[in-house]
Amino acid sequence: MPMRHFLSTEDWSRSELQSLIDRAREFRDSPRGDALKGKSIALLFFNPSLRTRTSFDLGAHQLGGHAIVLDARGSVWPVEFEEGAVMDQGPEEHVKEAARVLSSYVDLIAIRAFPKFEDWQAEREDPLITAYAKYATVPVINMETIVHPCQELALMMALQDRLGDVRGKDFLLTWVPHPKPLNTAVANSAILIASKFGMNVRMLVPDEVYTLDPRYMGAAERFCADAGCRFSLTTNVEEAYSGAHAVYAKSWGALPFYGQWEAEAPYRAKGAGFMVDEAKMALTDDGVVSHCLPMRRNVKIADAVVDSQAFLGISEAENRLHVQKAIMETLARGTTN
Amino acid sequence: MPMRHFLSTEDWSRSELQSLIDRAREFRDSPRGDALKGKSIALLFFNPSLRTRTSFDLGAHQLGGHAIVLDARGSVWPVEFEEGAVMDQGPEEHVKEAARVLSSYVDLIAIRAFPKFEDWQAEREDPLITAYAKYATVPVINMETIVHPCQELALMMALQDRLGDVRGKDFLLTWVPHPKPLNTAVANSAILIASKFGMNVRMLVPDEVYTLDPRYMGAAERFCADAGCRFSLTTNVEEAYSGAHAVYAKSWGALPFYGQWEAEAPYRAKGAGFMVDEAKMALTDDGVVSHCLPMRRNVKIADAVVDSQAFLGISEAENRLHVQKAIMETLARGTTN
Amino acid sequence: MPMRHFLSTEDWSRSELQSLIDRAREFRDSPRGDALKGKSIALLFFNPSLRTRTSFDLGAHQLGGHAIVLDARGSVWPVEFEEGAVMDQGPEEHVKEAARVLSSYVDLIAIRAFPKFEDWQAEREDPLITAYAKYATVPVINMETIVHPCQELALMMALQDRLGDVRGKDFLLTWVPHPKPLNTAVANSAILIASKFGMNVRMLVPDEVYTLDPRYMGAAERFCADAGCRFSLTTNVEEAYSGAHAVYAKSWGALPFYGQWEAEAPYRAKGAGFMVDEAKMALTDDGVVSHCLPMRRNVKIADAVVDSQAFLGISEAENRLHVQKAIMETLARGTTN
Repeated sequence: MPMRHFLSTEDWSRSELQSLIDRAREFRDSPRGDALKGKSIALLFFNPSLRTRTSFDLGAHQLGGHAIVLDARGSVWPVEFEEGAVMDQGPEEHVKEAARVLSSYVDLIAIRAFPKFEDWQAEREDPLITAYAKYATVPVINMETIVHPCQELALMMALQDRLGDVRGKDFLLTWVPHPKPLNTAVANSAILIASKFGMNVRMLVPDEVYTLDPRYMGAAERFCADAGCRFSLTTNVEEAYSGAHAVYAKSWGALPFYGQWEAEAPYRAKGAGFMVDEAKMALTDDGVVSHCLPMRRNVKIADAVVDSQAFLGISEAENRLHVQKAIMETLARGTTN
Repeated sequence: MPMRHFLSTEDWSRSELQSLIDRAREFRDSPRGDALKGKSIALLFFNPSLRTRTSFDLGAHQLGGHAIVLDARGSVWPVEFEEGAVMDQGPEEHVKEAARVLSSYVDLIAIRAFPKFEDWQAEREDPLITAYAKYATVPVINMETIVHPCQELALMMALQDRLGDVRGKDFLLTWVPHPKPLNTAVANSAILIASKFGMNVRMLVPDEVYTLDPRYMGAAERFCADAGCRFSLTTNVEEAYSGAHAVYAKSWGALPFYGQWEAEAPYRAKGAGFMVDEAKMALTDDGVVSHCLPMRRNVKIADAVVDSQAFLGISEAENRLHVQKAIMETLARGTTN
Repeated sequence: MPMRHFLSTEDWSRSELQSLIDRAREFRDSPRGDALKGKSIALLFFNPSLRTRTSFDLGAHQLGGHAIVLDARGSVWPVEFEEGAVMDQGPEEHVKEAARVLSSYVDLIAIRAFPKFEDWQAEREDPLITAYAKYATVPVINMETIVHPCQELALMMALQDRLGDVRGKDFLLTWVPHPKPLNTAVANSAILIASKFGMNVRMLVPDEVYTLDPRYMGAAERFCADAGCRFSLTTNVEEAYSGAHAVYAKSWGALPFYGQWEAEAPYRAKGAGFMVDEAKMALTDDGVVSHCLPMRRNVKIADAVVDSQAFLGISEAENRLHVQKAIMETLARGTTN
């Protein structure tokens, strides 16, 4: 089996992703394995984490492997990834060396690196993880950059557990309020996975400035078209919730104001009433609701909804452990360290 | 066996605590075990640690388990624990989600969370660990909040090793100098454990403003009364040391000045001569002396005393490893993850 | 076997060091071992690390042991190491207690502690690791202080792999440009190991102010004399590179300006042309080139050289894992925890 990375679900077919979810369900029932026996994984965090760090470390351990957590925020120098750079500025090391040396020690490399909210045209290329994947000689796993593919599988696993076959069902991604503009990664991921699995995808946003990057909008439209499903964007709350089978809540910053967020404020204000609450959920077809964690209660989703049976967020978070074990097991199969 | 937390020794009987100490002695002779085989513990640090982090991580490993260290100081968002809060301020996550998700991954959760020195009326309720214990579905262990129960067992184990049966022996908790006002946790814990184990408890303070919180003063008086022992507070050094069998040194801030420490300075100055030294120790009944670590030499305790046979601080620190293994083993017995 | 530390290669004979390298080669072929079964190592970092942390943690794991990473930068109080100090300033703990308690938990202690660039007369004594080694009751390993002995073995292993017997071959340590004055540790180490293994050692510096501390200059001259080799210092690039078999690049700050670096700038400017490039390498005897990582490309070494077969830096970095396992195995042999 040739070496594969797990950078985005775009690179994996629906049946491959379904196999990972199916394997994750086996791990839920029977957590131990030996796929990583004698193997190790480096967890490289350029941004903070609680669930991701815990679930990857524990998952590797339960598969017989050893995780090494590297906090790259303050403990490690920044890394250069431009080819041919004269490195007389901040970075002390080129990704070529960093990736190759790490590959000589461990069997898998997982990376969390959020965009810096400075220049979306550069950051939409996901340069750090792309460069690591280019120079690493072991598989690289995305622990959230500008997409969050592990969260996608955890979400889809939770949806299937409650809705059964999701094909043809209505999935709503709703923008929700938050004091700060956030990364679009989970929003990008939500429409990728729902469309890839054949759901009708609706996006509810306060204004069209909240449209996501064309790469992800385009992919989702294409996946929907391939599956004979609908993809739509609306600013109308009632229309959006009406008959939905699954509601996914997420807040993000509008890309046209990327890095200059003051100007986004009036658009953000238009979504002040967008919190998921019981009245909106009553418009759905007895829909379920989820959110990746952390989640601000009574800002993004009202207590009454979070504390109801409709809320899948805890299951989705638990599923992270199971799906990541399936991913590590699958990628490690090709390595021989 | 129903699930139990280890939040404070107040919730555990003397015989239960003695069993933990007895088991710790077995671990000292024979360190390996399998009580945590296939199990894991999250170590959640809201404050720094050297000994606690090392001894819990190593202890879990020696029992066949896996510890995951989560530095919650900068790497994780603050957590909301008020019921029904509209979370539009700092915290990104509610303890309900944090505790439930962590419980879905690991089998035990240990927490270090010092008070913030802002508002003792709120902080005396120990809100963070109390909330975690409420929502976690696995046992929670206190790694120091406003009490330090693991340190208590380590101290009592060291005392028994040197004094044999401690009942009826005289225990002195002496306030000692320190440049800064410190947490009362270890002082609270010292009088809890000494009184619970039937020692006569004396407190030596520079001024009555150093009286501890009524919750702990009251509990210690009650435990002493139950055991037919004396509990007393004094500002007289000679009286305090006279005939003592065990001296425990600790510095702490006076609660009436909590968060407004400038006004405490004149009271603190009254204790300038309170360092434990050879002259004071000569007043004891060939007494032993201890201190939880870290400890400023020649400020809290003079070199001549620290470097004498009377000093139990290193044994007490070593005992942390042994007692914590006994605690983890006991609490894990009820879990089935 | 009496307990030994691994603080500097100065304390180890050439044949002992060769045995460690030979054992490292065995580990490269067969990575697993059980020398640390049931044992543990504390990795105490006073400065950041990526490779060192990963390679020690993984190495301990592959030998059946358990590594505990202690980030002593912000998470742990500073430590006093002066005998008899009245500890009323910053440090909360004396190294006597820190070292003894850590020794009661673990079987090996590894320490990284760079000098503070304040007072070379004090820092040249390497006070922190020296004090730990004095009071620890388990072996102490140097993970880089003012020397970097693990890197030395990794370098010599890489040199022998490419050059065969290195005795009588010409080793050039060349100062290279860098925006900031750096620690002299790796430069000290480079001349120690090359001279101890019987190479002719040349140092190329922009000015004599870049002469290293007499302790290391003297040791290297002595080792060279013992082996019948030459030791020389030059500011002439052509002379330095001419006929060299191995080039080692490193940047460091000039000791006469220690802590007052502005005054060093004119001397640093003299080395502006000292980057290792193809033209300089053409003067060598088909020489190899290396650098400990991290390494600024096109500032210290040109891309064309780094990306050529002559570059050993990746192998040297990989060797860190192997040699450190040999060191841990050897030191742990004497312990019985």
